[in-house]
Amino acid sequence: MCGIVGIVDAGGVSFPLYYALYALQHRGQESAGISTFDQRPYVHKGRGLVAEVFDEQILGRLRGTVGIGHVRYPTTGANLPENIQPFNFVFREHTLSLAHNGNLVNTDELRTCYEQDGQIFCTTTDSEVIATIIAHEIRRSGLVEEAVAAAMRELQGSYSVVLTLDDALYAFRDPLGIKPLCIGRTNTGYIVASESVAIDALNGTLLRDVRPGEMVKITESGIRSTQIADSDRKAHCMFEFVYFARADSIIDGTLVYDARRRIGEELARGATADADLVAPVPDSGTAYAIGYSGVSGTPYLEGLMKNRYMGRTFIMPTQAMRESAVRIKLNPIRKHLEGQSVVLVDDSVVRGTTSRRLIDTVRDAGAREVHLRVGSPPIIAPCYLGVDFPTRSELIASARQTDEVRDLIHADSLYHIPLEKMVEAIGIEIGHLCTACLTGQYPVEVPGECCDHRCVAFRRDSIQTRLDLD
Amino acid sequence: MCGIVGIVDAGGVSFPLYYALYALQHRGQESAGISTFDQRPYVHKGRGLVAEVFDEQILGRLRGTVGIGHVRYPTTGANLPENIQPFNFVFREHTLSLAHNGNLVNTDELRTCYEQDGQIFCTTTDSEVIATIIAHEIRRSGLVEEAVAAAMRELQGSYSVVLTLDDALYAFRDPLGIKPLCIGRTNTGYIVASESVAIDALNGTLLRDVRPGEMVKITESGIRSTQIADSDRKAHCMFEFVYFARADSIIDGTLVYDARRRIGEELARGATADADLVAPVPDSGTAYAIGYSGVSGTPYLEGLMKNRYMGRTFIMPTQAMRESAVRIKLNPIRKHLEGQSVVLVDDSVVRGTTSRRLIDTVRDAGAREVHLRVGSPPIIAPCYLGVDFPTRSELIASARQTDEVRDLIHADSLYHIPLEKMVEAIGIEIGHLCTACLTGQYPVEVPGECCDHRCVAFRRDSIQTRLDLD
Amino acid sequence: MCGIVGIVDAGGVSFPLYYALYALQHRGQESAGISTFDQRPYVHKGRGLVAEVFDEQILGRLRGTVGIGHVRYPTTGANLPENIQPFNFVFREHTLSLAHNGNLVNTDELRTCYEQDGQIFCTTTDSEVIATIIAHEIRRSGLVEEAVAAAMRELQGSYSVVLTLDDALYAFRDPLGIKPLCIGRTNTGYIVASESVAIDALNGTLLRDVRPGEMVKITESGIRSTQIADSDRKAHCMFEFVYFARADSIIDGTLVYDARRRIGEELARGATADADLVAPVPDSGTAYAIGYSGVSGTPYLEGLMKNRYMGRTFIMPTQAMRESAVRIKLNPIRKHLEGQSVVLVDDSVVRGTTSRRLIDTVRDAGAREVHLRVGSPPIIAPCYLGVDFPTRSELIASARQTDEVRDLIHADSLYHIPLEKMVEAIGIEIGHLCTACLTGQYPVEVPGECCDHRCVAFRRDSIQTRLDLD
Amino acid sequence: MCGIVGIVDAGGVSFPLYYALYALQHRGQESAGISTFDQRPYVHKGRGLVAEVFDEQILGRLRGTVGIGHVRYPTTGANLPENIQPFNFVFREHTLSLAHNGNLVNTDELRTCYEQDGQIFCTTTDSEVIATIIAHEIRRSGLVEEAVAAAMRELQGSYSVVLTLDDALYAFRDPLGIKPLCIGRTNTGYIVASESVAIDALNGTLLRDVRPGEMVKITESGIRSTQIADSDRKAHCMFEFVYFARADSIIDGTLVYDARRRIGEELARGATADADLVAPVPDSGTAYAIGYSGVSGTPYLEGLMKNRYMGRTFIMPTQAMRESAVRIKLNPIRKHLEGQSVVLVDDSVVRGTTSRRLIDTVRDAGAREVHLRVGSPPIIAPCYLGVDFPTRSELIASARQTDEVRDLIHADSLYHIPLEKMVEAIGIEIGHLCTACLTGQYPVEVPGECCDHRCVAFRRDSIQTRLDLD
Repeated sequence: MCGIVGIVDAGGVSFPLYYALYALQHRGQESAGISTFDQRPYVHKGRGLVAEVFDEQILGRLRGTVGIGHVRYPTTGANLPENIQPFNFVFREHTLSLAHNGNLVNTDELRTCYEQDGQIFCTTTDSEVIATIIAHEIRRSGLVEEAVAAAMRELQGSYSVVLTLDDALYAFRDPLGIKPLCIGRTNTGYIVASESVAIDALNGTLLRDVRPGEMVKITESGIRSTQIADSDRKAHCMFEFVYFARADSIIDGTLVYDARRRIGEELARGATADADLVAPVPDSGTAYAIGYSGVSGTPYLEGLMKNRYMGRTFIMPTQAMRESAVRIKLNPIRKHLEGQSVVLVDDSVVRGTTSRRLIDTVRDAGAREVHLRVGSPPIIAPCYLGVDFPTRSELIASARQTDEVRDLIHADSLYHIPLEKMVEAIGIEIGHLCTACLTGQYPVEVPGECCDHRCVAFRRDSIQTRLDLD
Repeated sequence: MCGIVGIVDAGGVSFPLYYALYALQHRGQESAGISTFDQRPYVHKGRGLVAEVFDEQILGRLRGTVGIGHVRYPTTGANLPENIQPFNFVFREHTLSLAHNGNLVNTDELRTCYEQDGQIFCTTTDSEVIATIIAHEIRRSGLVEEAVAAAMRELQGSYSVVLTLDDALYAFRDPLGIKPLCIGRTNTGYIVASESVAIDALNGTLLRDVRPGEMVKITESGIRSTQIADSDRKAHCMFEFVYFARADSIIDGTLVYDARRRIGEELARGATADADLVAPVPDSGTAYAIGYSGVSGTPYLEGLMKNRYMGRTFIMPTQAMRESAVRIKLNPIRKHLEGQSVVLVDDSVVRGTTSRRLIDTVRDAGAREVHLRVGSPPIIAPCYLGVDFPTRSELIASARQTDEVRDLIHADSLYHIPLEKMVEAIGIEIGHLCTACLTGQYPVEVPGECCDHRCVAFRRDSIQTRLDLD
Repeated sequence: MCGIVGIVDAGGVSFPLYYALYALQHRGQESAGISTFDQRPYVHKGRGLVAEVFDEQILGRLRGTVGIGHVRYPTTGANLPENIQPFNFVFREHTLSLAHNGNLVNTDELRTCYEQDGQIFCTTTDSEVIATIIAHEIRRSGLVEEAVAAAMRELQGSYSVVLTLDDALYAFRDPLGIKPLCIGRTNTGYIVASESVAIDALNGTLLRDVRPGEMVKITESGIRSTQIADSDRKAHCMFEFVYFARADSIIDGTLVYDARRRIGEELARGATADADLVAPVPDSGTAYAIGYSGVSGTPYLEGLMKNRYMGRTFIMPTQAMRESAVRIKLNPIRKHLEGQSVVLVDDSVVRGTTSRRLIDTVRDAGAREVHLRVGSPPIIAPCYLGVDFPTRSELIASARQTDEVRDLIHADSLYHIPLEKMVEAIGIEIGHLCTACLTGQYPVEVPGECCDHRCVAFRRDSIQTRLDLD
Repeated sequence: MCGIVGIVDAGGVSFPLYYALYALQHRGQESAGISTFDQRPYVHKGRGLVAEVFDEQILGRLRGTVGIGHVRYPTTGANLPENIQPFNFVFREHTLSLAHNGNLVNTDELRTCYEQDGQIFCTTTDSEVIATIIAHEIRRSGLVEEAVAAAMRELQGSYSVVLTLDDALYAFRDPLGIKPLCIGRTNTGYIVASESVAIDALNGTLLRDVRPGEMVKITESGIRSTQIADSDRKAHCMFEFVYFARADSIIDGTLVYDARRRIGEELARGATADADLVAPVPDSGTAYAIGYSGVSGTPYLEGLMKNRYMGRTFIMPTQAMRESAVRIKLNPIRKHLEGQSVVLVDDSVVRGTTSRRLIDTVRDAGAREVHLRVGSPPIIAPCYLGVDFPTRSELIASARQTDEVRDLIHADSLYHIPLEKMVEAIGIEIGHLCTACLTGQYPVEVPGECCDHRCVAFRRDSIQTRLDLD
């Protein structure tokens, strides 16, 4: 999972990119990078938070009125410096900078294919494969539209991309619209970003989402749209709504907070618990718990207090320390929990270990009963499209009934939102959501997995180009 | 404002001190330090957050089964490296390490007095004055009890102190008990700390507060208490309950969260507003807003979303950027605010500029009405005892009626909790609270200010010493 | 100018590579990098000195029994992080790591050619072009020999290269042998490096130079040599002997120190000066001055003392400070210089500004006469093959007679070693040296410059492969 | 061992102090600090080299026209951050900043005495004791002269001190003049420093040494001198001449380089060796070897080449690596040594381990014979006055004849300069030198050691004050 942003602004883009990345920081804390263009590329990237990678002096050196930025999630894969985005490629005196959010499922085939053609790769990332396809086709045809069309034909998987070719900014999104990408207007320019909070950070206005299969070219004078591919069914990642996106983002028309609150309301309707209070798992459970409290009448009260200063460098040399670290991160409020029947609300249960620890913590703090309510159905299948879930065997629900899971995590009761209720709360038709992790039915072909084929039509012969007036 | 901690633990204290300081990080982000003792002192301190100052290697070098720690709040004063606590003093082959939370009002007189006596000072801090008095008296009498008694006779102001004399840990609190200090027991030792959350971080049990005027000596075998001075009236800082302490701390018998929630309830009772939602100013307004919602029935809903990654190094080179930084820090959720009448709940109004900016932000996001409810009475006088308030002329309420303030901050209505209701909600008699910033009546003599003399009796002739059995 | 090294050692290569780079640090202080291979590549590189880029923990993570390293000279070009060597390329599940010393003159043509073929480039370096050619051909034929042969046919310029293809180490040198490269044996393995001092650092034995046009494959069992191309005349860079290499290195059979000492002897024979002392410009003039003293009988005495702690970060904010910085770096010993006639010996005169400052400094310190003796003939033409000389117009001797230069640099007399004497002292036939910067005759074709064509014969049909037995 | 400097300059002192410390860096690499005064003190200090501790921004913040600086040698003692000089003490609204080079022998007595008087100490350094005495007396009399006089009466040992009392700069030197201290004039101000190279760094003129027992007050208008104490015999540290000082410094009237060269000449006269070359141990042996070569006619030729980039952080995790590190630091030039009889010249032999390693290295490189010539007599006794020698048992010569030492260090012959010849070469009467490490006769009383009492007369009743006109 990553966050991406592209900005055009006559007043300079390095500070706006910095602020936008700050707003997208929750999408990735491992590394951050900015690439701008002013006659030549200016690049700075490094490990750590946006605040650690950049300072005023560095931002002052990143010249230009167009640029892109990226934050990367800590994944288990190759943590090499050359894998930090944005990437910069040079060919025929042009500079192609590219930042990517998503995950391809046919990377290996594509690499092999291009390697046979003579290409060598500098990184081990999907993103370089995307850049290679685009650069190849630009070289052939000279047209970015053709290049992105070629990419969309070849790439399988999720990809929201921002790129600059010298001083021109482009963005596109896979035909299924798996990962989010939206467009905003600021006082002095335009912005494309993974989430609308990045637009808010610049005090801008959300114009719309980039449409699945669409490519936009953004200049100071406006936005030119080209619809390159269409799918009969989209596959928006449901986990963005449930966990990943910030609650104050609007994704594909839905305010994430409200989706979560509505799910919380449904949780209250679906399973009553005679409880004294409903407490969120901070921070992700808050909107759910507020919804739950509103419908059930159970008082909303914090039972676990989050330490706001936990950093990535928190030291826990021993197992005993790791156990006690839960309490340093989330401190139970004994006075609220003692002798009480508590409804705890969380967004999801993955491995179950965190849930068990939290429930134990709440119970150790004196709770009489602990009922877990979960804002997503049981996760039973891995994600190949960008969410860092573990393998099936590590997913607690992949081969267990809810009763078994309930016992394993030490809950008095356990209730997941049913799939159809979650879908209703999100407000997007189920046919346009990716729910592969909940059903095992994938929207793209993955070897060894079931695929509910979604039909992508390419319309190269009738490319629609229009100027957004908004 | 600062956070202090002292630990005795046969298994080593550097990691427990680190975890405790992590839990106290909200009390000071400017610098952090740890001093331990094992035959000789081991010290490490530096600028920045606990996570930045310490790493595993450093903690590994801080040997010993007794030690103290400190986090310091960014104040406007002399930000010199030698002012970073804990301080270490050496005399007659003894090492005195000391960490202090509070502020003296007779520092200058004491410095002058000791300077005439021959002392020179290495820092510009109050804390060195305290150490000097203690060291002088220990030298004379050889008894820490005598030394602390001498200190309590001479010091005017607030002081919660932890200190080690070689391998012995002591802690004491001024006779008025202005700043908090509490004692806990862990599996393998004891801890004294500014707030009980530090005890929670070690999975320990809060035993009790250090009593005003009390000194405790803590060893692995238990706690020995000496009541050195008594005051007929205490002066616990009300601002700890309203703003400074963590909500999950228990201070002088009161869970801070509940004090805040009860204030919120009183706010709802005191001034009705026909509102669509009640939204907290995150994070400090949360407990207040929950209390408000419970009594008023107005739905609790977040209207401002906090960016969890704001660091001290956030860059805002221009005024325009500083203005927009509010939005990066606190993003208004337009969908929740548009066309709505909003009750915004905050803990206090100091200069009024933040309140105005927040109200403007909420209104710009479409709110029809913005009603501000405040968890403390108007602040009209400066604090000389440790809270970093500005001067009278900068306090918006010091010379203005509430109506005037309401207009200045652009609120549709403004209601402060009345003093007596706040006191009731905190649950400590008004005679035992310091409310100087609200009334201008100070519990200690400050030149040019009114003082409601509180009578401190010293009981040197009948020092009570007893072993806590807990 | 750069330093490169490759090591095979069953006991691990990261520490040996570190020590070798330490010994080559004089060849580049801008950045340093190491790449090793153990099932997968391990890479670490960064800006700064070897000591700054690496620490024990980092070296501990660089696993494997084969690896390469690189130090880069601060050049005026694009100082981008992605340009730091070694480079790593991935294709068909193979990893190609490559480090390069030298400079190509046909980079642009080659890039264009490969770009038309579909390749995109991640850096702006020559080195990536070399890697591309090699990777292309390996892909085609599967043979590294073929690939290096293809590279030698296509590349124009200087290139000493070390590379690993997965766990195999290769090294090759351009057919003219412009940049040095030598092979050594250590107790537990083999090493190829730019200079023999890197072999000394591992307590190894210099076996021989890599021959111009030769490729060696180095494994734990020995060295396999393939002579790919032959030139009738070599073009060893004379500036390595005069300035760049460490005095204790043996390059192409000649101990650099002795070459310099013999030049110094010739300087004494060529131009007598009735001087009181001969003083070197530290440190590069030492060997020359010792030679001069031995033949002339003029006492060798230091007149300028070098500050051993000058770092790259020395601060000189103003012009006045920059002027006085000469004295901080090189302090004149007044007692040695006052009233004396001084022979100052330096390796070369490039722009003349440093010479003028030094002579002024010596004269300000009281010297009666200052005679400059220079270990190389006048530099009149730029270098396109790796030495960072300025343009012709900035070379003080390119359009001036020695008399004019003497006056401009404020010397009482100025004498350069004649070309033939320098060649004699180096001990390599003039036909096998590159003296382009002294004559304007280049050994390779450079647009707009004269070329003394040297004939390179490729012997692909009769590749000689033999096992070195040393 | 440390380096100190004080500067008065109307144009600001932070940059001049930085340059001066750069020139004194050889006197201490562990930490560096600067303290300036402009209404209030400005201080910056930290671990590491001058170049690492300071940058332009930091220097820009150190305001004022008066200030002092310090570099500290890595000693085995307490490496605590609070021990980094300069120290700053505050009393009666005055700031006393102090930097000290030397070592007291009665620290413990003085500390005890002042502690009984009520003083507590913030550091474990001698320097704080000096500051305490001075501050005490200034407080009593208000006169710095009185205070320094009191200090000179009480302090036993070596002390060269620079201090500022608010905006006034003072410097003084112990009555025996053990550690060096000199005064210079620059274009725009005055400087006192441990060595004259610091004056050279500012392009200043050495005026004279601070006289033993003298105190100087330095203002922009000139230097006011007060002779506080006189000793019939001085005790200038001979090791400054032999090893510690930079060769281009002039100390107590003698150019260090020339003292060393003359010693080298005497070494040649004292013991002939039928050698092929004389090679210095770089860098300290250079001047000695030049002198040796001049008298003996044996050719001067470098046999060991020093790596100029060795930093404090060089990594040697294993013993084997530590052994090979000698070669990375000092590389033998085999071609110069093979089959040769070599005279190796070094400044001193302390433990003997380094000498043995060097001789082994030279012999391994093929030398037929290795004759060691040493610029100082055998060191047989520890130093209590500032040189970091080991204990007697670790000094190879303390209980061994030269023959035994020769065998232990694997030399073919070993010859030390005789004491009287060294004294002659230094050019200072033996009665005015401290040669305690060579004779065991100390110039001050040290418990358990012999003392050759030197008579110090105090002249408080007739303080001579005169304005230097230079």
